[in-house]
Amino acid sequence: MKKNHLKIAVIGGGSSYTPELVEGLIRYYDEFPVAELYLADIEAGADKLRIIGELAQRMIDASGKPIKLHTTLDRREAIRGADFVATQIRVGMLDARSRDEKIPLAHHLIGQETTGAGGFAKALRTIPVILDICRDIEELAPGAFMINFTNPAGIITEAVSKHSRVKSVGLCNLPISTKMQIAELYGVPQSDMFIEIVGINHLNWTTRVLIEGEDVTEDFLNKLSGAKGTSMANIPDLEWDSEFIQSVGALPCPYHRYYYMKEEMYREISGHYQETGKTRADEVKEVEAELFEIYKQPEVNSKPAQLEKRGGAYYSEAAVQLMKSIYNDTGDIQTVNVRNQGIIPDLPGDVSIEINCVIKSDGPHALAPSKPLPPQIRGLLQVVKAYEELTIEAAVKGDYASALQALTIHPLVGDERIAKEVLADILEQNADYLPQFQVRAR
Amino acid sequence: MKKNHLKIAVIGGGSSYTPELVEGLIRYYDEFPVAELYLADIEAGADKLRIIGELAQRMIDASGKPIKLHTTLDRREAIRGADFVATQIRVGMLDARSRDEKIPLAHHLIGQETTGAGGFAKALRTIPVILDICRDIEELAPGAFMINFTNPAGIITEAVSKHSRVKSVGLCNLPISTKMQIAELYGVPQSDMFIEIVGINHLNWTTRVLIEGEDVTEDFLNKLSGAKGTSMANIPDLEWDSEFIQSVGALPCPYHRYYYMKEEMYREISGHYQETGKTRADEVKEVEAELFEIYKQPEVNSKPAQLEKRGGAYYSEAAVQLMKSIYNDTGDIQTVNVRNQGIIPDLPGDVSIEINCVIKSDGPHALAPSKPLPPQIRGLLQVVKAYEELTIEAAVKGDYASALQALTIHPLVGDERIAKEVLADILEQNADYLPQFQVRAR
Amino acid sequence: MKKNHLKIAVIGGGSSYTPELVEGLIRYYDEFPVAELYLADIEAGADKLRIIGELAQRMIDASGKPIKLHTTLDRREAIRGADFVATQIRVGMLDARSRDEKIPLAHHLIGQETTGAGGFAKALRTIPVILDICRDIEELAPGAFMINFTNPAGIITEAVSKHSRVKSVGLCNLPISTKMQIAELYGVPQSDMFIEIVGINHLNWTTRVLIEGEDVTEDFLNKLSGAKGTSMANIPDLEWDSEFIQSVGALPCPYHRYYYMKEEMYREISGHYQETGKTRADEVKEVEAELFEIYKQPEVNSKPAQLEKRGGAYYSEAAVQLMKSIYNDTGDIQTVNVRNQGIIPDLPGDVSIEINCVIKSDGPHALAPSKPLPPQIRGLLQVVKAYEELTIEAAVKGDYASALQALTIHPLVGDERIAKEVLADILEQNADYLPQFQVRAR
Amino acid sequence: MKKNHLKIAVIGGGSSYTPELVEGLIRYYDEFPVAELYLADIEAGADKLRIIGELAQRMIDASGKPIKLHTTLDRREAIRGADFVATQIRVGMLDARSRDEKIPLAHHLIGQETTGAGGFAKALRTIPVILDICRDIEELAPGAFMINFTNPAGIITEAVSKHSRVKSVGLCNLPISTKMQIAELYGVPQSDMFIEIVGINHLNWTTRVLIEGEDVTEDFLNKLSGAKGTSMANIPDLEWDSEFIQSVGALPCPYHRYYYMKEEMYREISGHYQETGKTRADEVKEVEAELFEIYKQPEVNSKPAQLEKRGGAYYSEAAVQLMKSIYNDTGDIQTVNVRNQGIIPDLPGDVSIEINCVIKSDGPHALAPSKPLPPQIRGLLQVVKAYEELTIEAAVKGDYASALQALTIHPLVGDERIAKEVLADILEQNADYLPQFQVRAR
Repeated sequence: MKKNHLKIAVIGGGSSYTPELVEGLIRYYDEFPVAELYLADIEAGADKLRIIGELAQRMIDASGKPIKLHTTLDRREAIRGADFVATQIRVGMLDARSRDEKIPLAHHLIGQETTGAGGFAKALRTIPVILDICRDIEELAPGAFMINFTNPAGIITEAVSKHSRVKSVGLCNLPISTKMQIAELYGVPQSDMFIEIVGINHLNWTTRVLIEGEDVTEDFLNKLSGAKGTSMANIPDLEWDSEFIQSVGALPCPYHRYYYMKEEMYREISGHYQETGKTRADEVKEVEAELFEIYKQPEVNSKPAQLEKRGGAYYSEAAVQLMKSIYNDTGDIQTVNVRNQGIIPDLPGDVSIEINCVIKSDGPHALAPSKPLPPQIRGLLQVVKAYEELTIEAAVKGDYASALQALTIHPLVGDERIAKEVLADILEQNADYLPQFQVRAR
Repeated sequence: MKKNHLKIAVIGGGSSYTPELVEGLIRYYDEFPVAELYLADIEAGADKLRIIGELAQRMIDASGKPIKLHTTLDRREAIRGADFVATQIRVGMLDARSRDEKIPLAHHLIGQETTGAGGFAKALRTIPVILDICRDIEELAPGAFMINFTNPAGIITEAVSKHSRVKSVGLCNLPISTKMQIAELYGVPQSDMFIEIVGINHLNWTTRVLIEGEDVTEDFLNKLSGAKGTSMANIPDLEWDSEFIQSVGALPCPYHRYYYMKEEMYREISGHYQETGKTRADEVKEVEAELFEIYKQPEVNSKPAQLEKRGGAYYSEAAVQLMKSIYNDTGDIQTVNVRNQGIIPDLPGDVSIEINCVIKSDGPHALAPSKPLPPQIRGLLQVVKAYEELTIEAAVKGDYASALQALTIHPLVGDERIAKEVLADILEQNADYLPQFQVRAR
Repeated sequence: MKKNHLKIAVIGGGSSYTPELVEGLIRYYDEFPVAELYLADIEAGADKLRIIGELAQRMIDASGKPIKLHTTLDRREAIRGADFVATQIRVGMLDARSRDEKIPLAHHLIGQETTGAGGFAKALRTIPVILDICRDIEELAPGAFMINFTNPAGIITEAVSKHSRVKSVGLCNLPISTKMQIAELYGVPQSDMFIEIVGINHLNWTTRVLIEGEDVTEDFLNKLSGAKGTSMANIPDLEWDSEFIQSVGALPCPYHRYYYMKEEMYREISGHYQETGKTRADEVKEVEAELFEIYKQPEVNSKPAQLEKRGGAYYSEAAVQLMKSIYNDTGDIQTVNVRNQGIIPDLPGDVSIEINCVIKSDGPHALAPSKPLPPQIRGLLQVVKAYEELTIEAAVKGDYASALQALTIHPLVGDERIAKEVLADILEQNADYLPQFQVRAR
Repeated sequence: MKKNHLKIAVIGGGSSYTPELVEGLIRYYDEFPVAELYLADIEAGADKLRIIGELAQRMIDASGKPIKLHTTLDRREAIRGADFVATQIRVGMLDARSRDEKIPLAHHLIGQETTGAGGFAKALRTIPVILDICRDIEELAPGAFMINFTNPAGIITEAVSKHSRVKSVGLCNLPISTKMQIAELYGVPQSDMFIEIVGINHLNWTTRVLIEGEDVTEDFLNKLSGAKGTSMANIPDLEWDSEFIQSVGALPCPYHRYYYMKEEMYREISGHYQETGKTRADEVKEVEAELFEIYKQPEVNSKPAQLEKRGGAYYSEAAVQLMKSIYNDTGDIQTVNVRNQGIIPDLPGDVSIEINCVIKSDGPHALAPSKPLPPQIRGLLQVVKAYEELTIEAAVKGDYASALQALTIHPLVGDERIAKEVLADILEQNADYLPQFQVRAR
């Protein structure tokens, strides 16, 4: 797509993550020369947007790169004519996330931002807003790529693919982290490594590892014995059982802990909440408050180290790598969320999957998995994907039946009576953000 | 297949259910004129076989039908040249079932004969024996139909279809009971009704109901509001929530209660066990002891009414109907377990499904479902089927990894740490019946 | 659907076939008590409609059955509130068919009414009219079943299923003829026979034959050695080669001769045309003229024997059987054209197939084939189905590209240069009937 | 796979193509440092092998590269411990090919080396020999990659994949030629271009063209209007019709001319044969005689220019690129023949397809096509693939029925009577090479 005047819009530009993104854009400027960078946010985020905007401007000034920065509360201005629209919104902000984590706990379920009943609630709030953004992109920047970081990223990607004509790619920092950790484990540069990642967002498996072209998958699974394996800042770090990992025949992703170690994860999360009165959202709020204090300081003109505590490492790396590869028609392999279309024949054709793709200027081209999925992976993947399909149906149509079924078949709920109670709480406590359920929410 | 000298072999002929089967054979003699009936059992069941044999002889004598009865401990004699081989075995007898129910309870899981960790243990014990029987049928009665009632009937049918050349059909009394209950609900004879049943054994859904050709599915789902719906003697009878049933869009089978109402079912079962010190198997043992006392009485020459308490109503009805329709090339519709072959495209081709079939003399011809399965049905079906595939793999190969994964992804377990502990108990307490796991079981 | 006042509409009621249909309605009156029979036709067919109407009235009078007959040029009046709408139209009448047969011959291709370039032209003319009729049914008789005899019946069924909400079933006399011939071959009543027919309209295979429940397929294929096999009045009757039939492993339908014996069929058809200057349509015109002379005679009050020369034997049998089974919720097996939906997994889900179905009051329920299709059947089926899909696309959208590709890949054309020339002639000579291609046609 | 001592075996090393391969190995020595090069051939080719061996030695000597050359009549010696086994055999040599071209002509069919009845005969002769070679590789070099150039390359790849455990990749010079021609058309280096090729060997379509990341497919199809498009030395170069190409929506490969322009191709080929008394094989024999005269000359120490007349340009380029990318774990995209496994969901999972692949050290990883195949491509692909499956079945089992069906459904035959006659000639004239058909051949 090489072109002279590259414009990027960031929807949710007032996010505390934005400095990382800006830092990436500066670092890779030579290969990806952004001319115009628009940070857009809503009225309620105006203050944060101002702080972030000032910090970003200082960072750009310090770098000497000729990136022109704009902050705006007018989303359409940001989108108009953009080449890339990055979406990193949080409908209802951290308060809503805090509720997403607490409601399930009140029903003795895991409360988590992106999966289970919490992730479900987030999806209900977020999908309508994202589809609104898509309407703007279709009108004002029909050729743009939408790069979505907003969670639950797989569900959002699928909703966009099913209900809009926008070219979108869903992105998560988890695959890139997994690659880095495996490369470190083997002491090789990433370029000497190839790993096969198959699944859906926050539920993928590393099914093969090649180091310098040698298939070391078996050795790799042995190495993980008793190790904590890959980890994310957000997820309590329980060890994988060696025999269990062998029996999977693949490395589960960190989020699998919520499924495979459901009981212990619940105890950890609810225990922590009972002890401290805080969930992860509450702690993130504190981290963010600190961060914004730092961001405000006029002498700060680079991404502060404290940002790492926030989680989401490599988000910017993942995002800039993807845009850079599209821009330069690079043809390298990245693991992103795309429409299935038969690549995983065990899932419907119109759903999103997370899969290795060759990134060309027209977007990602998926690599077919080298082997059929074994039943232990297939079965779990299918039931969680069915949950995702129902969640999208519920979010788009405000359909209570789909919502109730989504929660009922989700492995972290799995009981219709509990599902019904949790759903009642979710609909009530999110009523302001769920106009599509208006009648029901009362 | 009409022929002069019809021979039937019943493997597990000493079962307390046998009188019901005999009663059915007598009742339908004119359409299905059995010449030779062999009841075969193992040494350990010799006493029961003798009692059953004597009762059966009295029943036949009283009927005046020229059925020649044989009891034998030599399975091969029974099978040689048979037209139908009915299998109704219980490897490890009721003591093993009692353990199947108690081991899961010790890990705070539902303990049930055919599903969850209990059904899994039963499958591990049963599959090798059933495949042994298949070897005999392949050799001694290669044209015979094997009619399998042994639970878990779907898993057994799939194991036979994957690992033998025997023509087999899996049978359950649940679909026939569902039909009877719906017919009663509408006050029509079964012949005026058509219901679509789709799924797998003990996890099927009634997706459409036609009464006198009118599609009354919606009305039917309304009618179930608050009703106890269909029920089985074996399953605690919790009411279905009206809104929930509407959201499924189909009638779940009674065994769905273990999935959809997991928590409450667990409380019921474990509560009952704590109160009485007994599980269902223990109670069945008492019922059986009583039954055999009655069976022994020389004046008893018909199926005693007490047999109904035993559960399994209509087993004989289902079995005789099936054999009768094959024998007479009837072409009526029955719901049985057969190889999928694309009929439910969401499942692999080589697995078993429970589906409406037209019964011809060459066996069942499956009727394609009238609509694709909705995600709420598809997802649950897929994950449970994956569990079943893994269970068969584990049972046939004695493969620990498959066994661990089977339990881990089963919705009634769903946690690898618990799965591992339960599996250890299952392997240890069933060591005598699991030579295929010999090395591990120690 | 049992009801008091059964109304049937016949679109194309002036057809010479109608007396057969009327005869069937009279014969089966007790089981299928038609109260109102509407024969509708277009202005151009008014004379024929009058003659047919008068004959039909005499037939009904002679029978004493209380069927009320109406003839009308107002299609909507006929359709309003109908329970069944039978469509047997011929857009462009026999003159158009004559052209359909002659245009291909001019390019050294087989010219035939329902397949190849001739059937293609017929489809282009017919689909828009049929979809117009569907619009009326959707509005005026939304619950009606449309029973389509109009050729090419498979393509029409698929077009209706893809582009309307009408419940339609496609019907052909070929499967019923095949059954009758096989029953005769074995000297058994049809009720003692079961044959498996798989494929698409005018391209189906009889893959299994069971006589009194015995699988005699192999014997059956042997029996056909050198025999003329099944035949249709319309199709030159070349003998099947014994070795060839064995290698197919199934009985091809009579229309297969156009594919499997392409060269000889071409020689026969073109030879006959060169000799007589007539194609089948021209001969049918003469037969029809004769028939209508007979129909006019006031003393004729039954279906005249001469109708048999017309071809299309058992059309009425097939039609009345189907309507009767729907009306009575019979549950018998008939071979009809329905939406695939995965029943033949080698074809797309939304296409039409010809397959054994259990006929219930809500319509046909397809029986899954007992075995996967072998490559020799699969490959031919797939390429002809792709032709059909392209033809429908061309007919509905007036899309030249689809039309050209349809002809190019059809095995009876198979060359793009010839396809282009034939297509030009078809579009030009049918311009009056192809408004959708308007721009191009000039 | 980087390793110290790289060994390559070339089976059919006496081929006139070998100097091109040797030239490639020399040119890319730095990236692909072959230590041992074995040229193996059969007794009948000993003379040619000696001449090629001497030329190759002079070439290597002139290059100064430390490649150690061996010639041998002992295939097993060549294979033992090899890293790559290149197969470029011609069972029956050019005399057999000449017959393959003439037999079809005698029946008014296109006679061609790799497709139609000619390609079919070649497959029957070649598959058993290739599978013999596979047995040796399985035993003596189980880790080796087999790089197959032997035609029909797609069928051979599929036979190997279905009937051996050898890791094999099928290779054709056609995709690389297409890429070169398109790059030339747009005046860009290949690195700035991405084209999507989908299909099977000698029947693939270029469905998308991206130049510098811009999708120019539409423009590309326009550009081809009236142009001769891509071409191969072996294929009469008829122009594509502009309107036709638009209607395909993709660039057909040169071999498509045999299908899409069947009539004209037949006239060309048979006309040329009638005029000259020679088929392509006869001409190639003359070219080869000339070539070997040149090869013999002691002063020749490089690939002679005359080799280009032979056809098969870029064969060596394709082969060395593939081995080099595997060796270096390059990750570039090449179009090769691999097992389908769902990548083209319209074809069975176990067949071979020709598709873009990312080449890693463990072999090719297929890129999923970006869009479902349209019916015009799908239908033709499916019927030709069914032909290929039947051909493999026939070749492996010596099964006459499969052979007859293969020819009958092939679009270049398409008539069972002609198929039967051609098949009789093929079996008779190839009797020496078809022991699997022994009984029949007499």
